[in-house]
Amino acid sequence: MSVGAANIGVVGLAVMGANLARNLASREGNTVAVFNRSHGRTEALVNEFPEAGFVPAATYAEFAASLSRPRTAILMVQAGAATDATIDALAEVFEPGDIIVDGGNAYFPDTIRRERALRERGFNFVGVGISGGEEGALNGPSIMPGGSDEAWTTLGPILESIAAVAEGEPCVTHVGHDGAGHFVKMVHNGIEYADMQLIAEAYDLIRRGTGKSPAEIAEIFAEWNTGELESYLVEITAEVLRQVDAETGAPLVDVILDQAGAKGTGAWTVQTALSLGVPVSGIAEATFARSLSSQAAQRQAAQALPGPDESFTVADEAAFIEDVRQALYASKIVAYSQGFDEIRAGAAEYNWNIDLGAVSRLWRAGCIIRAQFLNRIADAFADDEALTLLMAAPYFADALANSQSAWRRVVIAATQAGIPSPAFSSSLAYYDGLRADRLPAALVQGQRDFFGAHTYRRVDREGSFHTLWSGDRTEIQA
Amino acid sequence: MSVGAANIGVVGLAVMGANLARNLASREGNTVAVFNRSHGRTEALVNEFPEAGFVPAATYAEFAASLSRPRTAILMVQAGAATDATIDALAEVFEPGDIIVDGGNAYFPDTIRRERALRERGFNFVGVGISGGEEGALNGPSIMPGGSDEAWTTLGPILESIAAVAEGEPCVTHVGHDGAGHFVKMVHNGIEYADMQLIAEAYDLIRRGTGKSPAEIAEIFAEWNTGELESYLVEITAEVLRQVDAETGAPLVDVILDQAGAKGTGAWTVQTALSLGVPVSGIAEATFARSLSSQAAQRQAAQALPGPDESFTVADEAAFIEDVRQALYASKIVAYSQGFDEIRAGAAEYNWNIDLGAVSRLWRAGCIIRAQFLNRIADAFADDEALTLLMAAPYFADALANSQSAWRRVVIAATQAGIPSPAFSSSLAYYDGLRADRLPAALVQGQRDFFGAHTYRRVDREGSFHTLWSGDRTEIQA
Repeated sequence: MSVGAANIGVVGLAVMGANLARNLASREGNTVAVFNRSHGRTEALVNEFPEAGFVPAATYAEFAASLSRPRTAILMVQAGAATDATIDALAEVFEPGDIIVDGGNAYFPDTIRRERALRERGFNFVGVGISGGEEGALNGPSIMPGGSDEAWTTLGPILESIAAVAEGEPCVTHVGHDGAGHFVKMVHNGIEYADMQLIAEAYDLIRRGTGKSPAEIAEIFAEWNTGELESYLVEITAEVLRQVDAETGAPLVDVILDQAGAKGTGAWTVQTALSLGVPVSGIAEATFARSLSSQAAQRQAAQALPGPDESFTVADEAAFIEDVRQALYASKIVAYSQGFDEIRAGAAEYNWNIDLGAVSRLWRAGCIIRAQFLNRIADAFADDEALTLLMAAPYFADALANSQSAWRRVVIAATQAGIPSPAFSSSLAYYDGLRADRLPAALVQGQRDFFGAHTYRRVDREGSFHTLWSGDRTEIQA
Repeated sequence: MSVGAANIGVVGLAVMGANLARNLASREGNTVAVFNRSHGRTEALVNEFPEAGFVPAATYAEFAASLSRPRTAILMVQAGAATDATIDALAEVFEPGDIIVDGGNAYFPDTIRRERALRERGFNFVGVGISGGEEGALNGPSIMPGGSDEAWTTLGPILESIAAVAEGEPCVTHVGHDGAGHFVKMVHNGIEYADMQLIAEAYDLIRRGTGKSPAEIAEIFAEWNTGELESYLVEITAEVLRQVDAETGAPLVDVILDQAGAKGTGAWTVQTALSLGVPVSGIAEATFARSLSSQAAQRQAAQALPGPDESFTVADEAAFIEDVRQALYASKIVAYSQGFDEIRAGAAEYNWNIDLGAVSRLWRAGCIIRAQFLNRIADAFADDEALTLLMAAPYFADALANSQSAWRRVVIAATQAGIPSPAFSSSLAYYDGLRADRLPAALVQGQRDFFGAHTYRRVDREGSFHTLWSGDRTEIQA
């Protein structure tokens, strides 16, 4: 086969793919081959951006011929069957040693499966998590690549050329082998769910507690965005709350139907955590809050259920708002701590050598959860690479110690007022659970031994034990 | 092939299988063939219980020859590979029309897969959930069969002969086709996780709030077991709390290591609910509470994190205990409501025609979650077969209205005291979420539209809309 001039190709030219291709083309040293199943889209892109110098291909064979070796192609197609079909088509025209990159939102076990199958055929397959939406794809996303070290040699400089930059560092790291990149991207999205739900609860409490308008609350979020909560999501929350519906003159947030959608990555994060035995309750409550909101029939049926008798009024508005800010910050620390816990457990399960500090650094810019806060997380891992629990790192332990009283006051106020705050309260219960000296899990284990002979361990010596509950109730070694 | 005299066979004679075989043999009209991979166990069973009239088989072929047609065999072997291997071996010696029953704890998608594969070969395959532990297997379990109508004709009377009996009815119903039985059993176990965690939180709060000893708290649970909380799990809680460790003289619950184990069915329930988009937060928090308890390293690291400054003291002990009882009852209603919601969603997804009232009736005896309470659920479905939301049925709505103040006081006390009550607080947040007139999910959807162009719906007209956030901020129809 002939060898072409392009050092990188993009397959799939919908908005994300087109933007990524433009981003690649804009960087020194890249020549970008482009291919789309329907050729019209390829032509449109090439014609719209002549300065990009795209090398268009009408067929997979032409696409392969336009790439230099090792051929490197980034797939930006729908997850699932479309990804498998595109991989198969590329494998027909590529040669051993070539690199096929899946830049879509694949579920990491699929990436593991594909990597294995393609490796057996001599190809390099790299699953890459890309966060930042359309804007990020064009101007610099946060990039989480898995795959082999060999592929990274070629792919690394290319991805570094297009990634967002935080404190001078490109927001891309070779996270680990095979599915590690998509795994980390999945957890990123799970944390994003938690972040968004916590912000929503903060907004709801302030609105119902103080009667302030969305526009007034927008100012509060804008103010928060100048402090330790500084983040993209807090920033855009102010923008959304400020928005007025042109048609009705009402705040847009009051016009939007209060049923939140989801594309599945939050659910994957929680499902995976359950398989790994990692409690990610904040992410779970955020995911469930979305599905609850969409249960129209059940919500209708629940309208008759009563709330508290007294109406909710806040005595000192400024103090309450500050309490909510602290509760948001504390709960956010919990969500990230749980997310990093899941990455650590995933790395152990799948034999990935993931540098958690590097993950925190590559999330500092380009992605949806980008935040000042991630610098503090990076510091924590820099101080202690083997950190067992993010929320117990000195900086965060101090922050939690300072905010826990406010956090409790907010959960109490919400409980009293009948305002649902599942993520605030669940995060606090997690905090109190993990720091508890003794948990009633001992009773649960006793029950399990009673009805299922599941045995228990003792606090005072090794071994497994069983009480003969339906016999003479003596204890035996199991 | 020859045809034998046994109308039912059991394969796998570990404790559950042996007890089920003895139960079958004890009922009028059953002759039970028995087979175990290592024949010694078969011989031991036959010799120990000569009155059972077991028909032992040393090989699969002998086993098949000992059964009348259609041959009907219940597998009581380990879930997973052992089940597949046993099915394959039986299919070698059985004939089309014969019935292979999996009585183990299979994950329902495996049951769907096996049923399809065996149906193509002409066999009937029935996945059956069996609850009640060793005791139930021997004396009368609660039985949740799936599979075909044809198989039910033969299998129904046999299962009815061995099931537990509640109010004159055998605790077995043909739940639905293929994997329906194992699905319902899975949700049963998920509810069981929630029940156990709620009891554990109630115990912990009373102990830390009043300083009462486990033996004293055992009396409280025994008392509760005479009222609306009457249930097997409350009953055995009193037994476990009463138990004194012979070695140390301490309450056994203080000697048991406070790390609860799990065999995966709670996680399956939550994972499946996430795929179905059903919020089962109470079950999720219970599952996570177990995994949190087993995170020894993280718990160690969290020891330094501070709790509330003030110590926890309850002014009126009797009132507090009554509040906890009401919180337990209310949270229990939520857990069951969520569980039935999941069964309803599963039935819709997998085209099972599940009678939720029949499910509640078959849980009234024999199984781990058996309780008086299930008669109230059966009543609710009898009053309204198409009930949308269990907790909104008149009886439960009243119960929740009566207990919600106490429930809030308990969550507030736990929050103030720093005692983790994730299942109590999550259940209350779910209650408040579902009955909320407006949810901040509208803000979440606005954020999603901002960063990902995911669009939103409006409260005032049909369609999907997008605001041009990075443009002139007008709204377009998507």
